Formats: sequence, C-alpha cells, structure tokens
Amino acid sequence: MQKIESTKNEQIKQINKLKQKKYRQQTNTYLLEGWHVIKEALTHQPAEILTLLMTNDHFEEVDPFLVNAKFAVLQISPQIAEILSDTVHTDGIFAVAKLPDPQKIELDIEKPWLVLDHIADPGNAGTMVRTADAAGYAGVVFSAGAIDPFNSKVVRAMQGSQFHLQVLQLDDLEAFLTAQRKKGYRLFGTLVDDSATDIREVTLKDQHYVLMMGNEAHGLSPELAEIANDNLYLPIFGNAESLNVAIAAAVIMYQLQMKL
Amino acid sequence: MQKIESTKNEQIKQINKLKQKKYRQQTNTYLLEGWHVIKEALTHQPAEILTLLMTNDHFEEVDPFLVNAKFAVLQISPQIAEILSDTVHTDGIFAVAKLPDPQKIELDIEKPWLVLDHIADPGNAGTMVRTADAAGYAGVVFSAGAIDPFNSKVVRAMQGSQFHLQVLQLDDLEAFLTAQRKKGYRLFGTLVDDSATDIREVTLKDQHYVLMMGNEAHGLSPELAEIANDNLYLPIFGNAESLNVAIAAAVIMYQLQMKL
Repeated sequence: MQKIESTKNEQIKQINKLKQKKYRQQTNTYLLEGWHVIKEALTHQPAEILTLLMTNDHFEEVDPFLVNAKFAVLQISPQIAEILSDTVHTDGIFAVAKLPDPQKIELDIEKPWLVLDHIADPGNAGTMVRTADAAGYAGVVFSAGAIDPFNSKVVRAMQGSQFHLQVLQLDDLEAFLTAQRKKGYRLFGTLVDDSATDIREVTLKDQHYVLMMGNEAHGLSPELAEIANDNLYLPIFGNAESLNVAIAAAVIMYQLQMKL
Repeated sequence: MQKIESTKNEQIKQINKLKQKKYRQQTNTYLLEGWHVIKEALTHQPAEILTLLMTNDHFEEVDPFLVNAKFAVLQISPQIAEILSDTVHTDGIFAVAKLPDPQKIELDIEKPWLVLDHIADPGNAGTMVRTADAAGYAGVVFSAGAIDPFNSKVVRAMQGSQFHLQVLQLDDLEAFLTAQRKKGYRLFGTLVDDSATDIREVTLKDQHYVLMMGNEAHGLSPELAEIANDNLYLPIFGNAESLNVAIAAAVIMYQLQMKL
C-alpha cells in the first residue's frame, strides 16, 4: 500500500480539487468522506470506487473489502485527512468515486421519480435524495438550476443513497418529463397554495408518478407547475407559515407511497 | 432612538453573551436574529420582546410595530450587526426576547405533544419544532439531555414557531409523561425496528397523544420506549438504512394528524 505523508503531494492536491465542480466535471469523479458512506459504496457499487484513502486506523474494517478490489489504496497521514476533510471531525477515510455515467443511467425504472427544481441548499438536496431512497423511489433528477448533486455537502447528506437509486442532473428537464408522461406517468407539482390539491385527496393506483419540488424561496417554476397533471399542497394545521422543503417532500413522498 | 456605534459598547457586549446558555439562564432572555422571526414575535407575542436592535435600513418595516411598543429600540451600526450575527449574511435586525416563564407554560392544551429525547443537533431540533407547529401540535418538550431550545441555531431553525406553540425543557420528563397519561393521552415512542408497530397500523380517535423522538445516533432512551403505550416505526421501502430524525418526525406527525 502506498503511503503519503506530505500535505504537498501532487496526487493529494489533485484529489482536493474535487471539492470544485469544475474539477469534478473535468475528471468525471467526486470525493466521498466517511466510513458510513464508503461502506455503502463498497457494498453496493464497488466498481464506482477508483481510489481509497485512509489513515491507519481503518485497516481492519476495510480489509474484507480489499479482496479482488480493483481500486488503488493509499495510506494517508492525519494531516492529509484534515486537508481533504469537509467536516469538523473527520474519521480519516476518503474515496475518489466515478460520477454516474450519463449513458448508463436507467431512466426506465418503473417506480416514482423525484424532481428537484432549482433546489439551492445542499443539505436539503441531499436529505431529499436520502428520503426518496427510503420511500422506494427510482431516482432523483436535479434541474440545471439546482445545486450540483455531487457537491460535497450534498454527498454528505445523501448518506450513500446515490449507490441505491439514480441521481442525475438534466439540462433538458422537460424532455424527461414529457418522456415519463408518454410512459403513463402522472406529474405532480407542489405549491404552497390551498387552491392546489390537498395531498389527502390524491388517489393513486400505481407507482407511475413524478413528484416535483421547487426552490426554497421561490417555489416550483411556473412552467413546471403548468405542465403538472396536479399540483399538490400539504395542509398546515397550526400557525407555521410554511415547512422546510425537505420536510414537505418527505411528508408528501410517504403520503403518496402509503396510498399504494 | 438610542444609537450605538461602538463595537465595544457595554450593552452590546452583554447582549452578545446571550449566545452562551449560561447567560441566557442568568438573564432569562435570548437573542433573536432576522426580520422574518422578529416579525413573528412582534405579531404574535410582542410582550416577549425587551429590546429591538437594528441597522437603519429596517426603520420602515418596523415602524408599524412601534406604536405603543413597550420595548427599547436601539439603532446599531453594520459592524455591531456583524458581531451579534450568527449567520453568514445578517439582515441587521436583532431582538432580546424573554425566555418562556416556566410558571406560564400551558401544559393543558388538548392537542398532541412532541417530546425530543436527547436530540443533539440544533437544526434537527428547530426543524422539528417548526414542523410540530405546522402539524398543529400543542408544544414541544425537550429532555434535560437534549440541546437547549434557545440555542441560536435552534432558534434560527424554529423560524418563529416558539411564538405559536409551547417550547420547554424539562428536568423531569417522566412526570410530564405520567401527567399526560393520567389525562388520557397515549404515549407513542419511535424505534428503528420493524418489531415495533408500523405507523400505518395505528388508529387514533382524538388528538390526545404524545410522540417521542430519540437521539440521532442512539434512538429513544430505553426507559421512554418502555413507558410508551406503543412504539412506532416508519417502513423503509427502498435501501436507505434510516431517515434523518427530523424527516422521520415530520412523516410520523403528519401521518398521525391525517388519521383524524
């Protein structure tokens, strides 16, 4: 196993650049941090891992995954871990992973899809991917104006769900929606407006639907609300003005899935 | 209106100390930041405000609330706003508010209660208060081991919901639960364990229930799970290992409220 001690090592510098979108796109890779998420990758999608980097206290837990492993393994110093880390207390394990190959994304999975239209906050975005995974969705499509799904803060909040469902960002969101509609999918928008359809009144006969959540401050884009078969709202029983978007998405996803 | 320019002003120093729990408890006050939440306070509970501090660009929006106002108003410099701020971009308006008076907390409201047992993350805690408000709950009780509900990050995430429902921290949580049970409340725990009761199988005839959410890493305390009439779990339809606690709380609160 190669050992890297110097914080000025060229490979480390290159890996550290993956915190920037530009370098993720140039290399088609992104950075994972933390044993929890790396274990998800090693368990579900080991071929996605290109390089594993760890301080020496991870050898034991990683060892069972190294049999037939196709990726490089580097031992790094705690100082390098601090540099690569995006958290307050790093656990000292990182991986360079492949970005999903657009050619290999499976858009035909016959389960619900979540669309994140102009979602700006990485924690919200990642949490919604994780919740969509729990709710049994096929995947999450980020609009071109949304945050990059492989931003490190999004990746942290996804907690490895990108290895369980499809996660992609599309320039042409309307083409995706049109294609889904042709396959018999219903398109649900969401509005903070009680002229929309109360979530309790929706009836569903199968999992062929797309749920679209809008920007934290501005809501769903008017053209998406327009294209939707129904726009849904979640009733407010108390005095809060609104709900956090990731909270609203979770309640609606579970409400819909539990109707089936 | 008194004008404060010096960042070394003694009153500003004292107010800045409210970021620490010790000083909040000594003075029975806490700090609010941002027009959104301060407007909620001025609208719903103006008597809770002791001092309003703002840069000069807030005069117009604040003006309607100053008629008969009982609180002091201070004009502060942008430099002072930066010092008091707990956010990346402050909007330059702050208030010193009273902590809820334990003598005045209404524990008899006949709506559901949420209990946060050892919740550690301020964003999670504040988001759950906001969601409980939206779901029409009477209040949120923090256990002694949970984060302080008036920590600045909790306050930011509550978005003013503390002016709509009861928010309190109790040393003797079991006394509260016993009292609620005597009033005919059902106690629901939550477990990440499918031997517990699936949320879909719960039947409810009224709003007399307490929902208890446990610590992010360790779940609900065994003694609370023991005291519960039922422990609930939320089914995972996909491959995520778990849900964020604020997400799980939201889905369960809405699931329960929508059964009524």
